[in-house]
Order: sequence, then structure tokens, then C-alpha cells
Amino acid sequence: MEVINTKEEFSTFVDSVKNEAGYKQPLGFGICKVDLSRVNPDEDLTANFLVSNWNENNGSAAVFQKVVQNLPSNILHQSENELVVNIDLEFTNSALALFNPFREEATGDNHLNVQAMNILNGIMNHQDFEGFKEENGIAYRLIMIYEDTVVETVTGAYLKLDALSKSKVKLRSLNLNGVFGILKRLAWVGNTPFELEWLKANEMQLKAVNRYHAIESVDKFPRYLHHIIPDENIRILDDSKVRYGAQLAKGTVIMPGASYVNFNAGTEGPSMVEGRISSSAIVGAGSDVGGGASILGVLSGTDGDPITIGKNCLLGANSVTGIPLGDGCIVDAGIAILSKTPVHVTDTQLTKIQEANPDSDIGRKSVTDDGFYAFEFSGLNGLHFRQNATTGQMVVFRSTREVKLNEDLH
Amino acid sequence: MEVINTKEEFSTFVDSVKNEAGYKQPLGFGICKVDLSRVNPDEDLTANFLVSNWNENNGSAAVFQKVVQNLPSNILHQSENELVVNIDLEFTNSALALFNPFREEATGDNHLNVQAMNILNGIMNHQDFEGFKEENGIAYRLIMIYEDTVVETVTGAYLKLDALSKSKVKLRSLNLNGVFGILKRLAWVGNTPFELEWLKANEMQLKAVNRYHAIESVDKFPRYLHHIIPDENIRILDDSKVRYGAQLAKGTVIMPGASYVNFNAGTEGPSMVEGRISSSAIVGAGSDVGGGASILGVLSGTDGDPITIGKNCLLGANSVTGIPLGDGCIVDAGIAILSKTPVHVTDTQLTKIQEANPDSDIGRKSVTDDGFYAFEFSGLNGLHFRQNATTGQMVVFRSTREVKLNEDLH
Amino acid sequence: MEVINTKEEFSTFVDSVKNEAGYKQPLGFGICKVDLSRVNPDEDLTANFLVSNWNENNGSAAVFQKVVQNLPSNILHQSENELVVNIDLEFTNSALALFNPFREEATGDNHLNVQAMNILNGIMNHQDFEGFKEENGIAYRLIMIYEDTVVETVTGAYLKLDALSKSKVKLRSLNLNGVFGILKRLAWVGNTPFELEWLKANEMQLKAVNRYHAIESVDKFPRYLHHIIPDENIRILDDSKVRYGAQLAKGTVIMPGASYVNFNAGTEGPSMVEGRISSSAIVGAGSDVGGGASILGVLSGTDGDPITIGKNCLLGANSVTGIPLGDGCIVDAGIAILSKTPVHVTDTQLTKIQEANPDSDIGRKSVTDDGFYAFEFSGLNGLHFRQNATTGQMVVFRSTREVKLNEDLH
Repeated sequence: MEVINTKEEFSTFVDSVKNEAGYKQPLGFGICKVDLSRVNPDEDLTANFLVSNWNENNGSAAVFQKVVQNLPSNILHQSENELVVNIDLEFTNSALALFNPFREEATGDNHLNVQAMNILNGIMNHQDFEGFKEENGIAYRLIMIYEDTVVETVTGAYLKLDALSKSKVKLRSLNLNGVFGILKRLAWVGNTPFELEWLKANEMQLKAVNRYHAIESVDKFPRYLHHIIPDENIRILDDSKVRYGAQLAKGTVIMPGASYVNFNAGTEGPSMVEGRISSSAIVGAGSDVGGGASILGVLSGTDGDPITIGKNCLLGANSVTGIPLGDGCIVDAGIAILSKTPVHVTDTQLTKIQEANPDSDIGRKSVTDDGFYAFEFSGLNGLHFRQNATTGQMVVFRSTREVKLNEDLH
Repeated sequence: MEVINTKEEFSTFVDSVKNEAGYKQPLGFGICKVDLSRVNPDEDLTANFLVSNWNENNGSAAVFQKVVQNLPSNILHQSENELVVNIDLEFTNSALALFNPFREEATGDNHLNVQAMNILNGIMNHQDFEGFKEENGIAYRLIMIYEDTVVETVTGAYLKLDALSKSKVKLRSLNLNGVFGILKRLAWVGNTPFELEWLKANEMQLKAVNRYHAIESVDKFPRYLHHIIPDENIRILDDSKVRYGAQLAKGTVIMPGASYVNFNAGTEGPSMVEGRISSSAIVGAGSDVGGGASILGVLSGTDGDPITIGKNCLLGANSVTGIPLGDGCIVDAGIAILSKTPVHVTDTQLTKIQEANPDSDIGRKSVTDDGFYAFEFSGLNGLHFRQNATTGQMVVFRSTREVKLNEDLH
Repeated sequence: MEVINTKEEFSTFVDSVKNEAGYKQPLGFGICKVDLSRVNPDEDLTANFLVSNWNENNGSAAVFQKVVQNLPSNILHQSENELVVNIDLEFTNSALALFNPFREEATGDNHLNVQAMNILNGIMNHQDFEGFKEENGIAYRLIMIYEDTVVETVTGAYLKLDALSKSKVKLRSLNLNGVFGILKRLAWVGNTPFELEWLKANEMQLKAVNRYHAIESVDKFPRYLHHIIPDENIRILDDSKVRYGAQLAKGTVIMPGASYVNFNAGTEGPSMVEGRISSSAIVGAGSDVGGGASILGVLSGTDGDPITIGKNCLLGANSVTGIPLGDGCIVDAGIAILSKTPVHVTDTQLTKIQEANPDSDIGRKSVTDDGFYAFEFSGLNGLHFRQNATTGQMVVFRSTREVKLNEDLH
């Protein structure tokens, strides 16, 4: 493999690779450790990314594709959309020969792909490497995704989840179809996966010798904290509460009571989350999801339309929200606002809501005798939903309260 | 101890044992590892079953009883209803001499009791066995239960919980009286139990040498996943959410938000559980227990009548259900239907409910001026409970929606 | 350092120390192991108390202050209010010379401060001690707090949390201002803290060698069970549900569904907790916080007034309580009683409520046309809050039901 000596040579090299016939720039790519199946050692069960890239670092992508070109036997899966390659010592040697001008300065936040190659090369040069790999049941992979279509491989699924959780892509922007089919149901002990069939086959022996595992979850997805180091001011008080593939913005606090953040769901700014952000739901900056509050998700509850909650909203304790909300909205504690919930509004309040939402046609459409359904207020700003404690009527009015998070906490 | 050489001899042997005077066939029996008390080494704290049997494998039961007959000093507890026996090398040698014709074919799903003896015999023949046992603070037991009466021993309590969690018996079919008295409150680190008095006595030393345990729970019961390998398509996203003694059917998903499944409670088919299934409550196939939904249990909440939820029901997010439901029922999000909740029904809807429940006498009994209480609809099919959002009235009507789980998830 | 030989000499010594000019008696003090920062080894991240004292054991306090006087270079932090001192072999030798008459009888519950010195002295005399300390990244500290003002140090913050969780002080009696600023956001693996910046710097290497930690929480506070051995009959089914600084009385059961007990909050007697006791909220003996029930806290929800729930109350499943309650109150399942919730009461019921609360002026004040707000009933006994299922009206009446916990469970 050729060795590149200067950054200029590197630029020239990358350009030449990109100009090769058939060169495809990946959408995303990453370098990961994979856990291998205990039942079928050729099967990847999971992927843990040393580095993942999304629409970035095209030079590194070119290097890796060149390396793969020269090591075709390392290819494990190749299609129009996905490429999975085994990373071995030769792979890292070849990549580092090309990354040569950057090897020394690859520290801290610089040249993460080069750092990953440096680290793997160091490990693989160790004389006990094969034994270590065997004992740990692991291997290393390069995964490239060229188009955002149906997920084809385990490493591909994990790369998309990683891109979501590392905020490299927007929530709901990726095609996750197929992910439930691709990911295997696994028993997790910490971040180590076990296949249930392997556990079954070894159950008696493990129990007899007092080494039966204390399984912490059985799921197709791992936990967010098994992969992600949370950004500034994010706090997650219980790892079981956030699935890998969730996206949390700086200043998000996930309390342990009745909260949950599913994959492809999350927050866009500082927020207090003591309730459930179901799959595909998004919560805006400054909002408070009260204790036990539920935001319905696309996998169950809504009719398939994902729910966005705006900025500075308050979803009261044990409330249920089944419609999207704009900014500065309040859903009172204990009530349920579902798509088809009839909500009453006075003429005065309707006018105020219209003033707060000049672009909306709320109330200017013909209204049925039954009044409004909650979904007609979808996405409007400054709403306050309440159940009238004297008449039991569900009402909406223009909110007069400003929602503010406790600054000490975020 | 005699050695049996053929399967025919084995049959003859079993028949002869069963015909012995005073022979009692056990209702259930099992082979387990037990954790011993650190305070009193003669006390069993827990039991972890290599194999448990309930109304099955009577041949194996006969073998074990014969072995015990010849090893009376191994008996630790013996009463009309329970027999607990220490398993040592001599026990396994004797048992395997009788199981001889089956030893080789005891693999996979075949002859689990023989497999257990093979495995224990292998361990006990190891020269370091005594040291290993000492170091781990464990021992091995045979437990037999003859009648389903009040629980007498720790191993007996665990055998009943195991039978429930392995679906060997129906939920609510076992007498669990005495279980709270028999089981000791323990501090669990993974699946290793510590006595609180032992921790107290060693607290300073452990903290000083940085070996203080990260205790995960303090409870009389262990967690389901510390004992059970979940069946096909069962997913449990947080081990703290299911107690040992719960029963989960294939396709049950336990989400981590606000869910919980207590012992002697569970599901009868594929189901999505994001809420609480309290002690003695049962949820039918195809039902969805929404986020934060509560099904009241016999230990707190109901008047002692356990609640059954039928098939294809939907308990909305943060709803509370205090009455049994038939099939295809819906309780709307956020409402509470307790036994004595007055619910209004129109004549038209009452007729439709009657048509859906031809065997019920609902509405044909005299009705008080106050209308109906919720409990009068107990167990009926096709109900939809809702709070009228205009009048605040709690109403019930004939459901027009079919509840379906998301097939990808179960 | 002088050696004290008799208990009489010890008394004389203590008196002489207390009479020294400038002697200050501490409010609280403790002996702890600290985890050191991996980034800055001079920084204490946490404290784990071998023994903590609050308004007690002034003789021991005098001994420790004398030792510090003679070892000024061990002082790490000294102000009007807090003193933090490094404990090394010389410290323990000096302290034990003074504690000499009590060393032998310091076992079990006797002379815990002397026990702590004995244990630390034993460890520090070990020839591998420096290596052990280095490897574990730990050190030992004496912390003294003289006045209950703003928290200044990590060890000071932990001492106050410890005093709360060990019931050495009443809930809400300590000044915890500054605690969010002093405590660092940490990633916890069991009870071992990791700094997020250190994890970030080592992420790739750890992932590559399959030693990436399974982080269980990211929080400024540790968990209660990482520090406290629960008292008689306390059960905590999931360690993530109780923060360090919470106070649980004997017989408290914390279920794992939707419960949470924040710091500076807790229970005053046997209780069943399946819901949320937010920061500064207190629940009385015999009360039942139903599944998913929320008691609002001062950090979010209330206007700053902490909520006390009296004895023998029942907060129904998924209820929300935003006002203080007296004894024997019931909030029905699924309803929200917030400070400004209008609640209706009949004249008859108002009279009964007045009879049950002779010292209250409820209903004797002028009443607005709107009737009552919930907060006007704050702290009264024997109330039952309900939503009328026919009219949707929120009502309060004199409770006719006695709330009793299931005795088997507490």
C-alpha cells in the first residue's frame, strides 16, 4: 500500500479517489467494535462506534474506500446501499499509510477517524490480539451507508441510531424501516449482549456454578448510555429510561420516576423530562414534561402523525397529549387531550388565540355544532388546555402563564 | 445403590417405588442451587432452579424419593407438604445410577432432571468443589411439594414462584399464603443476595476498602430475569419491572416507563405493557396497557377480587382500571374506572351492550335512580369507557373500535 | 502525640479541648472515603461516610479537632463553616492515641468514630496501602460543619445528604443552598463515579478494548442505596427510585413502577410508595401513595411551598396532589388537586369538615362566589377529594373511609 507523506499529497489522493469511475460518496460511515454471536460466530450482534460520520469527513471516506478496494476479501456485505468490511491489522496499516500526515496531530477532537485507526492498529499489533478478540467475542468493522433506504445490516442499523443519538441528523429524518427485523432480541448484561438461545443452552450449567447472569434487559435495542457520552448538562438518572437512537439536547434532564424516551424521539433544548416521549415525538427547548405525562407516539397511540411539542410548554403531571403543540402551551395536570377530544372555547378566548396565531385559520373554518376537536388546535402557540372543575368541560384558552424551567437544574 | 441398566428396568423400578406403602406423588419438585445465609450458614436464603417440575416427570420424582429414602441424613425439612433435601455427591451418584439408561440422551430439551444430576455430579466430582461451594456460599437442594397449602420453606416458596413464571401453572391457581413471612428481606446486587444485618456489620470495612456494594434492590422477592429466560418474543426493557412469580406470555413487551408486573400477575398472550399489572391481575392476548395505566391489585386498591382484562383491550395512557373487563374493551386515556364509579349509559348503547353480551343480565336487573356503578359492567365485552368532555359525565358505550397491536413489535 | 490511658483522662482531655480559646463545637462531622477526580487528583468528587454525626458525639469531635490542630498541613479547606482534612496514617495514629480507652470496646453500635479510626488505621498500616489508594483513586477525609449555611464543599454537601438519609435531622431542616453548584455532574457505574470529560477522552480506547463502561446514571447526586443500609422493613425495589438525601422511615416500601423519592423528601412512617414524592415533600405514617400518583415539589410544580401529606392518607393511582393534606385524607384515583383547583363542597359536608378540624377557619372566612379553591383546604384532616362522575364537578367531602396499609407488606 502506498504511503502518503504530506497533506498536499493527501488532498491530491482524495481527489483522485473521488474521480475514479464508480466512486460513491457515502451518506454516513463509521468504525465500530462488534459483538459476535455466540451461536454463529459469523454474525454481528451489535456495533459500538469508536467514530461515526454523517455527511462529513469525505476525505476519510475516500481513504477507507481505497483500502477496501485493495482488500476485497475483507468485505462482509455489499449492496447498493450498504458496505460492511472487516477491519484487521492489514486494513489499519493500509489506512494509516494513507492517513500518515495526520497521525501525529490526531488527538482530542481532531481527525477522529485517524485516531480510531491509530487505536485499533495499536491493539492489533499486540501479540495477544487474537486471543483477546476470541475471549471477548468481538471484531471490528467499517460500515458505509450510501443512501437512506431500508436498513440492511446490524451495523447499518446501529450507525443510523448512532447518528440520531449524536445529533448528527435531525430526529425523524432517517429511514428506519426494517430496524425491528434486523435487530435481534438480546439479553443485556450491562452492555454485553447474550443470545437467548445460548443462555437457554447454558442455563443449567451457569446456575449450577453460580455464574448465571443478572440480565438487565431483553430488547432489540441497547440503551443510550451504553453508547453515548451525554453532552453538556444532560442528566439521565436511570439508564433504562433512554433507548439508543433517542436524541437529547444540552440541558435535558431525564428523571427516573415514570419517564421514557424512545428511539427516534427526544428534545431540542434544555428540558425537564419526568414523563414519556414516545417514538417519533419531539419536545422543544424550555419545555417541561411533568411527572408521568405521556406524549403519544407513532408506534402506539397516534394515527401515525408524530407529535411535536413546542418551546416553553408545560405538560402537567399525569397529563396525556395526543396532538402537536406550538410554543408556550400548557396541558393541565391529569387531563388527556387526544386528537378527537371535544374542547370548548369561548369567543373571547378564540379571538385571543387567533391573535397569538395570525397565520392559523382556527375558528375561521366552519365549525360543527359540536364545537372543536382538539386536533383543530394542533401546533398553535399559547394554548392552555384545562378541564373546568365546575362543569367537567374540557376547555382551551389563551395561556396567561409563562413556562420557565428552574435554571439551577439545567 | 442399585444401578439400572435399561429403560425397561427403569419402568419397573418406578412402578415398584410408586407401589411402596406411603409413597406420595409430589405436586411439584425441583433441583436448585441455594444461596446460604452469611449470618447463619444453615439457612437457605434463595433458590435458583436448574429444573423445576409441576404435575410432570413422575418417574424422576420416584427416583429422587428413592434416593432420599436411602440418604435420610440429607433431609433438611420434612412435613406433610414439603420435603427439602441436601444434594451432595452421594445423592447425585445414587440418582444417576437409577437414571443410568437416560444419561447419554439427556441433552437439549430431554430429561432435564437427569441433565441437572449430570451437571451437579460433574461439579461435585471436581477436587476443588468444597472450596468453590464455600467461596460462593452456596449449596444444592431437592425440594418437593406434595399439596398446595401454605408455604413452609424458602425453597418451597421459590418453587411456586418458578412454576408461575415458567407457566407451569395458571396465574392465581397456587396458594401463596405465607410467602411474605417466609421470604427474607434481602439486599440484591445483581442476583446475589446480601442480608442487611451482614451489610450493617461490615459497612465500615467495605466502605473503607472501596468495596461497598452497589445494591440494586431491597426486597423479599428477586427479579424475574434473575431466574427466567423469557420465551419467544418477550421483551423486558428493564429488569426491575417484573418480579419473580410474574407470568408473561409469548409476545409480551414490557416497556420501561411506568410499567410493573407484580408476582402472581401477568399476561396471557402478545401484549404491550407500559403500565402496571398489580398482584393477581391478568391481561389477555392482544391487549395494550398504555403508558402509566394502572390495573388495581388485590394487595392494594381492590376489595380483594382480582382483576382480569380480556383480549384486545386498550387501557389508555394514565387510565386506572378497578373492575374486570371482557374482550375488546377500551378505557380512555386519563380516566379512572373504579368499582363504585357511577357510569351513565344511554338506552341505545345499553341495548348494543346487551347484544354483545347475550349471557349477561346487565340492565335487566333493577337499576337504582343513580344509574349504574362501574362494577355492574364487570367482565362484559366490547365496552368503551369515556368521560364526556362536554358534560364531565363518565359514560360507557358499545365500542366501535378494534384494538390491534403493532405487529412489528410482538 | 499524647496517649490517653483511662476514660477519666479522656473526659478531662475533652473538657480541656472544649475550653480552649476559639474552640467551636461542630454541628455535624464525619469520616469518609472520597473518590478523587481522574482529571484533577486534588479534587474530591464524592464522599462515602464510614460514620457521620449530627449534634452528637462531641467528645469525638474534640479529639478530631485536637488532631487537626497538630497536623495543620492536612487541612484541605477551612472556613467559618466548614473544615475538610485529609486523613492519613499519622492522623489515625494520633486519634487512636486519644481514643485509646475505647479502642477495644469499639464494636457493634459502640463508638462508631473510634471504629472508623481503627479500620482506617488497619488499612493504612498495610504495606500496599499507597498502591491500593492509587489504584482505587480514593482518599479519606474528616469533614466538619459548624453552621448550617450555604454548602461549600463536596464533602460538606454529602454530609448533609447523609444526615438527611440517616434521619439524623428532620427533612427540610437543613440549608441545602449551593448543592447543585457544588456537586459535579458524574457518570455512575454502580457506585463508582466517572467524570464525563475523562470518559470522552478515553471513549475510543475503552470501546476498542471492549471495556467501555455500562453507565447507569448521569447525575449530580448518587443513589440512596449506594450509601445507606435501609432500616427495618424498608424495601426499595429499584435503586434508581431513591436519591441520596431522601429520608425513608421504617416500614416504607418503594415499588418500581412509577415511583420516585427525591432528595430532602420522604416518609415519616410505614407507607406504600408507588408514586412520586418530589423534592421537599413529606408523607406521613400509614399513607399510601398510589401507582403513578404525583406529589408536587418545590423544584417544579408548586409555588415554593413544600407539601406535607398527613397520616393514613390515600393518594389514588395517577392522582396529582398540589396542596398539603392533613391526616386521613383521600384523593381519588386519576384526579388532580392543584392549589387553584376550584372545589365544591355542600353545606352539610362543610359542617362535617369543620367538626373534624375545629381549629381551622375553613368556611368561616368570606367565600367568593366561585366557591373554594383547593388551597383553602390545605392541611385539613379527613378530606376526600373526588370528581363527581355525573356532573364532572370537583368536590370535597368528609371522608368516611379509613385508610389502612396491608399489614403483611410493612
